[in-house]
Amino acid sequence: MLTFGGGGFAIAHNGNITNALSLRYDLVKNGSIFQSTSDTETILQLVARSSADRTIKRLVDALLQIEGAYALVILTNKKLIGARDPFGIRPLVLGNLDGAYILCSETCALDIIGADFVREIEPGEVVIITENGIESINPFSKTEKRLDLFEYIYFSRPDSVLDGKSVYDCRKSFGNVLAKEFPVDADIVVPVPDSGVPAALGYSEQSKIPFELAIIRNHYVGRTFIQPSQSSRHSSVKLKHNPNKSSVDGKNIILIDDSIVRGTTSVKIIQLMRDAGAKKVHMLIACPPIKFPDFYGIDTPETEQLLAANHSINDMCSFIGADSLGFLSLDGLYKAMGYKDGRDNNNPQFTDHCFTGDYPTDLKDYKDEKIQEQLSLLSDNDINI
Amino acid sequence: MLTFGGGGFAIAHNGNITNALSLRYDLVKNGSIFQSTSDTETILQLVARSSADRTIKRLVDALLQIEGAYALVILTNKKLIGARDPFGIRPLVLGNLDGAYILCSETCALDIIGADFVREIEPGEVVIITENGIESINPFSKTEKRLDLFEYIYFSRPDSVLDGKSVYDCRKSFGNVLAKEFPVDADIVVPVPDSGVPAALGYSEQSKIPFELAIIRNHYVGRTFIQPSQSSRHSSVKLKHNPNKSSVDGKNIILIDDSIVRGTTSVKIIQLMRDAGAKKVHMLIACPPIKFPDFYGIDTPETEQLLAANHSINDMCSFIGADSLGFLSLDGLYKAMGYKDGRDNNNPQFTDHCFTGDYPTDLKDYKDEKIQEQLSLLSDNDINI
Amino acid sequence: MLTFGGGGFAIAHNGNITNALSLRYDLVKNGSIFQSTSDTETILQLVARSSADRTIKRLVDALLQIEGAYALVILTNKKLIGARDPFGIRPLVLGNLDGAYILCSETCALDIIGADFVREIEPGEVVIITENGIESINPFSKTEKRLDLFEYIYFSRPDSVLDGKSVYDCRKSFGNVLAKEFPVDADIVVPVPDSGVPAALGYSEQSKIPFELAIIRNHYVGRTFIQPSQSSRHSSVKLKHNPNKSSVDGKNIILIDDSIVRGTTSVKIIQLMRDAGAKKVHMLIACPPIKFPDFYGIDTPETEQLLAANHSINDMCSFIGADSLGFLSLDGLYKAMGYKDGRDNNNPQFTDHCFTGDYPTDLKDYKDEKIQEQLSLLSDNDINI
Amino acid sequence: MLTFGGGGFAIAHNGNITNALSLRYDLVKNGSIFQSTSDTETILQLVARSSADRTIKRLVDALLQIEGAYALVILTNKKLIGARDPFGIRPLVLGNLDGAYILCSETCALDIIGADFVREIEPGEVVIITENGIESINPFSKTEKRLDLFEYIYFSRPDSVLDGKSVYDCRKSFGNVLAKEFPVDADIVVPVPDSGVPAALGYSEQSKIPFELAIIRNHYVGRTFIQPSQSSRHSSVKLKHNPNKSSVDGKNIILIDDSIVRGTTSVKIIQLMRDAGAKKVHMLIACPPIKFPDFYGIDTPETEQLLAANHSINDMCSFIGADSLGFLSLDGLYKAMGYKDGRDNNNPQFTDHCFTGDYPTDLKDYKDEKIQEQLSLLSDNDINI
Repeated sequence: MLTFGGGGFAIAHNGNITNALSLRYDLVKNGSIFQSTSDTETILQLVARSSADRTIKRLVDALLQIEGAYALVILTNKKLIGARDPFGIRPLVLGNLDGAYILCSETCALDIIGADFVREIEPGEVVIITENGIESINPFSKTEKRLDLFEYIYFSRPDSVLDGKSVYDCRKSFGNVLAKEFPVDADIVVPVPDSGVPAALGYSEQSKIPFELAIIRNHYVGRTFIQPSQSSRHSSVKLKHNPNKSSVDGKNIILIDDSIVRGTTSVKIIQLMRDAGAKKVHMLIACPPIKFPDFYGIDTPETEQLLAANHSINDMCSFIGADSLGFLSLDGLYKAMGYKDGRDNNNPQFTDHCFTGDYPTDLKDYKDEKIQEQLSLLSDNDINI
Repeated sequence: MLTFGGGGFAIAHNGNITNALSLRYDLVKNGSIFQSTSDTETILQLVARSSADRTIKRLVDALLQIEGAYALVILTNKKLIGARDPFGIRPLVLGNLDGAYILCSETCALDIIGADFVREIEPGEVVIITENGIESINPFSKTEKRLDLFEYIYFSRPDSVLDGKSVYDCRKSFGNVLAKEFPVDADIVVPVPDSGVPAALGYSEQSKIPFELAIIRNHYVGRTFIQPSQSSRHSSVKLKHNPNKSSVDGKNIILIDDSIVRGTTSVKIIQLMRDAGAKKVHMLIACPPIKFPDFYGIDTPETEQLLAANHSINDMCSFIGADSLGFLSLDGLYKAMGYKDGRDNNNPQFTDHCFTGDYPTDLKDYKDEKIQEQLSLLSDNDINI
Repeated sequence: MLTFGGGGFAIAHNGNITNALSLRYDLVKNGSIFQSTSDTETILQLVARSSADRTIKRLVDALLQIEGAYALVILTNKKLIGARDPFGIRPLVLGNLDGAYILCSETCALDIIGADFVREIEPGEVVIITENGIESINPFSKTEKRLDLFEYIYFSRPDSVLDGKSVYDCRKSFGNVLAKEFPVDADIVVPVPDSGVPAALGYSEQSKIPFELAIIRNHYVGRTFIQPSQSSRHSSVKLKHNPNKSSVDGKNIILIDDSIVRGTTSVKIIQLMRDAGAKKVHMLIACPPIKFPDFYGIDTPETEQLLAANHSINDMCSFIGADSLGFLSLDGLYKAMGYKDGRDNNNPQFTDHCFTGDYPTDLKDYKDEKIQEQLSLLSDNDINI
Repeated sequence: MLTFGGGGFAIAHNGNITNALSLRYDLVKNGSIFQSTSDTETILQLVARSSADRTIKRLVDALLQIEGAYALVILTNKKLIGARDPFGIRPLVLGNLDGAYILCSETCALDIIGADFVREIEPGEVVIITENGIESINPFSKTEKRLDLFEYIYFSRPDSVLDGKSVYDCRKSFGNVLAKEFPVDADIVVPVPDSGVPAALGYSEQSKIPFELAIIRNHYVGRTFIQPSQSSRHSSVKLKHNPNKSSVDGKNIILIDDSIVRGTTSVKIIQLMRDAGAKKVHMLIACPPIKFPDFYGIDTPETEQLLAANHSINDMCSFIGADSLGFLSLDGLYKAMGYKDGRDNNNPQFTDHCFTGDYPTDLKDYKDEKIQEQLSLLSDNDINI
C-alpha cells in the first residue's frame, strides 16, 4: 500500500490542461480540497485519487483522464519522470551531463549548462529515470506528432533546435518567404525587437534591402505578453521601445514582426516610426493571421480581442496605421518549415489551430460555461455554505 | 448541490482530536491531499468528503467521526458556527456585543472587548448563528458534562468564570485547602509567579503567614510551556525568574506552585531561593501529582518524562531539592471546587485523567504506533513513490 | 593622528541630554550632518569634533559640554567605557562574570546572566576597561550624588538593588508609610498591577487589611507609558486590565498605584472597579503629586497635561471618580527611603524635581523655544535652501 | 542664517570624484562623520561645511574643491539644480515636458517619458530651476569641452543623441571604418551582443559580408560589467551567450565587439564559436586598445589587469584564441566621429585617456596610497580609539 502522505511528488508543467475544470468539478464534488487554481494541481489530485498501488500506474491513471497540451517533469524520492502529451504539442527533450539525465523544454537550456542533447521525448511517451537507468512506456492507444507551430514562431528561443530544426533558421526562412510573397520598394528593413529580428534578417537577405536596428528595446522592462492587464500592457509598449531617429527620418521602411495578436503593439510601434520621421511604414508579419484563440499554453485573448478574427486585412492595416500590411501565407509558413508542398490538410504536420481552428484535442472546459462559473473562487453562489 | 470549491469554510480549534491520525490515514488512502500536519485539517477533509448536501449536515458527518476534545468556531459566507465536544472537555462561551453574537473560549475575552456573557455552549452542542438569529442542535446520542479540571488549575486566565465559578477564587481555594492539608512553620509564603499567585494568597490567608512577592518574573520572556525544546526550556527558567534577595535572605519559606510536570522549573526556582539565602524551602503544589499524560490540548511530555509518574513523593522532594514537598489531595481538589464529598468516583464531575488515568474518550491514535509512523512527513518508507 | 573614519565607536545611552538641541544647533551651523534626531548623536558629533588626539580625551571634551542625565556605555575596538552624569541621576553598575567586566543600568541584569555585582559607578565617573584592566577618571570639577527618586518609584525593576537599597523593599516601605498617613476602613487592598503590587503589600502588612489581586493584567499588551499617542494609550488601558468580579463585588476597596501622571489610567481602573460591583473605591498613591515635568529620561507630558500640576487633590479625586484620594507626602517618601528626618532641603539626598521643581541641571533647550523650532526636521523655514 | 538641519538636499551623481578621499581625510580630521563610503557624500559634507549663507554659494564652494567627472542633479525644497564638471566628461541634458524642466544624462530618457529635448548643459555650467524659471551660472575660471569618448563606444544607449551625434550612427561608423582598416575574407559578420551589434552592421554594410545574429544573449542575466567579482563575471559569460550552431558551423566568421578590457569575455565567445563549428574566427574591435585605467565613472580594472596595457596585439590574439585580431585606430575613431583629420593632439576634441593616458583632471587620490589605506573602513590602525 502506498499513501500520498509521505510527501515526495513535485510536478512542473509547461502547457495547459483543457479539461481541468471539468475534472476539478468532479473531484471537488467527491471531497478533494484544492490548494490553488492551477490546472496542474488537477493532475496531482488525480494521482492521489488513483486506486493503483505503484507511482507510475497512478500517474498513468491521471494522464489517461487529462486532455490538452503538456510537457511534465515530475520528481519523487526515487524517480525523475517526464511525460509529453500524445500530440507532442509542447516540446520536451532529454539531455545528459556527466552521466546525469536532464529533462527540459528546449535545447538551449542544455547548451547553457554545458549538457549534451540526447533525444526528444516522443509524443505520448512517459520516461522514467531512476538510479537503475532510464526506461520508457507509452500508455496511449494512439499518438500523432503535431508540435505547435507557435514554438517556431514565438515561444522557443532562437538558439534552440526543435525536432531537428534550428528555430533561428526557421525564423529567417519565414523572412525569406515573406520577401518573395511581399516584395516592397523601401529603404530599410526594421525588425520589431527582439522577436522580429531573425525574420527581418531573412527578408533583408532575400530582398537586398539594408537591415537597420532602428528600434531599441529597453531591457529593464519585461515581455509584453506576461503583463497582467491590458492597460499596463498599453503603457509598457511605450516604455519598451525607442527609435533611432537618425536611421528612420525621411525613410520608407519595412517593419517586420513575428505576429499580430491584438494589434496594440503594432499601433504604437508604427506611430513611433512616424514620430521619428518615417515617410512610409510597410508592416509585414512573419506568420498568418491569428484568427482562433490558443488553449494550449498561453494566455491569449478570447476570440473577440484577436484582431484578425474580426477584421479584414484592409481594416487591420487602417487600424494599425500602416501604409500596407502583409501576412505570411499558411502554405508559405509550411514551405519555410521545409514542406515544399505546404500544409498536408489531411494529416497536418503541426498544431496550427491559431490560424486554422484545427484543435487536435477536445476543449471540454471551454464549451461548458456553467462549469467555469460554478468553480470560480469568487463565486457568490454557495448558498449551502 | 454544493461544492467546497467556492471557498468559505474557516475553522479555529481549541483542543486535540485523538483519532486524527487514524482518520487521516483513511482519507489519504482514498485520495485526499493534506496541506498541513494539523489535526484540525482532518475535520475540514471530513466535511469535504461528506455526501450530505447542506453545510451543517456535512459538519455533523465530520463531528460524528472525530474523538477527543474540541471547542470549534467555524465561519462560512453565511454562518458563524460553534461546536463543543460531547464531554465539554474544553470550554466555549457565547457572548453578545451590541446585538452581535460572539463565540470564545473564556469569559475574559468578552470582558476585554466590553461584551456581555450570554451562556456556556453545552457539551455536544452545535450552535448556528446566521443573520436570522441563533439556533442549536445536538447531534450526539449521549453527552456528559466533564470539563477539564486543568482549566481551573492552569489553562484559563484567573479573571475568567467557567461554569459559574471564578477561576481566581478556585485557585485561592486550592491554597486554602492546601494550608489545611499541609500546615508548615515558616516566615513567608512565596508564589512561583504568575501561576502560583492566587494559591499562595489563599495559603497566606488561611495560615496567616505573610505573603511575599519574592520572585520577580521577567515579562520579556514567554511562557515556559510553549518553548520548543527541553534545552531552551531549561535556560529560559533562569532568564524568567529573579529573586528579591532582601525578602528571602535568612528566611524559612513556603514556595507555592500550581503544578509539577517534569520538575525542572521547581529545581531551578528552589536553587534560586537557596542562592538568595533561604534557610528552608518547603514546596507545596496546588494540585495532585500528575501521573498520566494529557491528550486533549497541551503538549505535555510522555509518561516517562512526568516526574510524578515515576517517582515517590520522597524521591521527588530530593530531586527538586526541597526541604519538604506536599501536593493537594484529589479529594481536597474536588472539595476546593465546592464538592464537599470530594470526587464522585462513579460519575466524576470533571475530566481529571492527568491525576487518575480516567480518559473520557477513546485514544485510538496513541494505541496504534504503526499509524503514527506511516504518516510521518519525514518517512523514508515510500518505496512505491 | 586619529580619525573617526575607521569606525569603532558605538554608544548606548540611558537618560536625556538637556542641552542637546543647543549643541546640535551650533554643530549643524558649523557643518556637521546628523543622521538621526536622537540627543545621543550629539555626543558622537562632539567626540568627532574634538581636537584632542586620544579617545578618552575626546570623550571628556564632549562630556564637559553636555548637560543632563546620562548613563553611557561605549564600545571601541579596544575599550569598553562607562560614564555617569555628575549628579548620578541615572544609575550605572559594574559587574563581573568569569573575570569579564559588565556595565549595566540595574543589578537585576547581572542576576539574570549570573554575574556578580562589583560596585556602582560614581556620579561623574568615567570608567575605562581594556585588556589591561580597569581604571577610572573623574573629569568634573564638582559632583554630587542625587540619584533620581523615580528609579525607586517606577523605573527600576523590583528585583534590583540601587545604592544598597532593594527597590522592592523601598516600594513596600512606601506602602507602610502610606498606611500610617492614610488609614482607611476597607475590606481589601488591591494593587494596580504590576507597579502597585509592592506598595499594596506594604499597605496590607501595616493595616492588616487583606491583599487581593483583584485586577488581572493582560501581558500580551505592552507598558502604558511607551504607547506612541494619547489615543492609543486610552484604549490600551481597557485592553490591559480586567477585574476578578467575585473579589470586588460588594466590597470597599483601597486601590494602590505607584503614581498619577495624567490620571487617565486611574479613571479607567476606578470605573472597572465600580463596574465590577465595588461599593467604595479609595485611591492611594505611593508617591507625592507629580507637579513638574521630567527632562531626564522619560517622555512625560508637558506641564499642562500633568494632572497634579493643575488641580487640587479634591479636584483630582473628582476627576478620577474615587471616593477618596491620598498621596504619600514628600517627607514620608524620604522617611520610607530611610531618612528619618525626611528631605534635607539644603542638600536634597535625591533628584526629586517631579515633586519639587528642583532640577539639578540647567535646562537650556527647554527655555529656548526658537532652537526647537529651527531644528525641526519638518521645518518650512529653509528659505535659503 | 541657514542650517543643514532642515533636511532637503538630495543629490544624484553620475561620474567619479578623483580627490574624494583626500577631501574626506581632511573633513574627517575636522570632525565630519560620514554615513557612507560614496565619493558623492563628500560633496554633501563640503556643502554642509561651507560658511556661505545661500544654497547656491555653498554648492559652488563645494564644486570648486572637487576634481573629476560629474553630472549632478540636486533637489532641495525649492530648487532643482544641475551641475556638470568643467570638462563635460559626463553628459547632462535639459528636457521639458508640459512646461516642467527635466535633467537627465541621456536623451533616450526624455524620449521614453515623451519629453522634448531642450539643450545640453554646458561643461562647468550650474543650472538652477525654481518656480520662477531657469537660470545658469558658471563658477569656473576655465572650462573646456572634452566629452568622454567612451560614452559613444560603450556607456550611452544607442538611441541617445550626444552633442548632436546619434550614438547608433557613431557605432555603425566605427564598423564602417573598421571594415576599411581591416578587410577580411569571411562568410559572415557576427556581433557580440548587444554592444557589438551596430558596429557589426556597419562592417557588414561596408564589406558586403552578410550580417548574422549567431550569438543569442540570455536577457535573464545582467550586464557583464557590473558583476561584483572576477569569478562571478567568469561564469556569467557562459550563462549569457549561446550560439546558433546552424549559422556558425563550417563558416569563417568575423566577430565584432565594442572593446576589450580584460579579454575574458573574448576568450569565452571565441571558444563558443569554435565549439559551434566555426572554421576561422577573426576578432575585430570597434575602438583602440585600452591601455590606461578609467577614473571617471566605471570600475575598470587596475592597469595590471588591462589586457592591452601589458600585451602586444599578437600576444592578445593568442590569449583570446582568435585567428586574427584588429583594433580600430585612434585616428580612425576620431574620423568616424566626423573629424576628418583625426585627433587634434594639441587640443584633443574628447576625453580619451583609456587609449592615450591623457587625463584632463588631477588624480590626487590615486597618487597618494597612504590616504586610501588610512580611510579604509576595515582599518586595524585605529590605535587611539
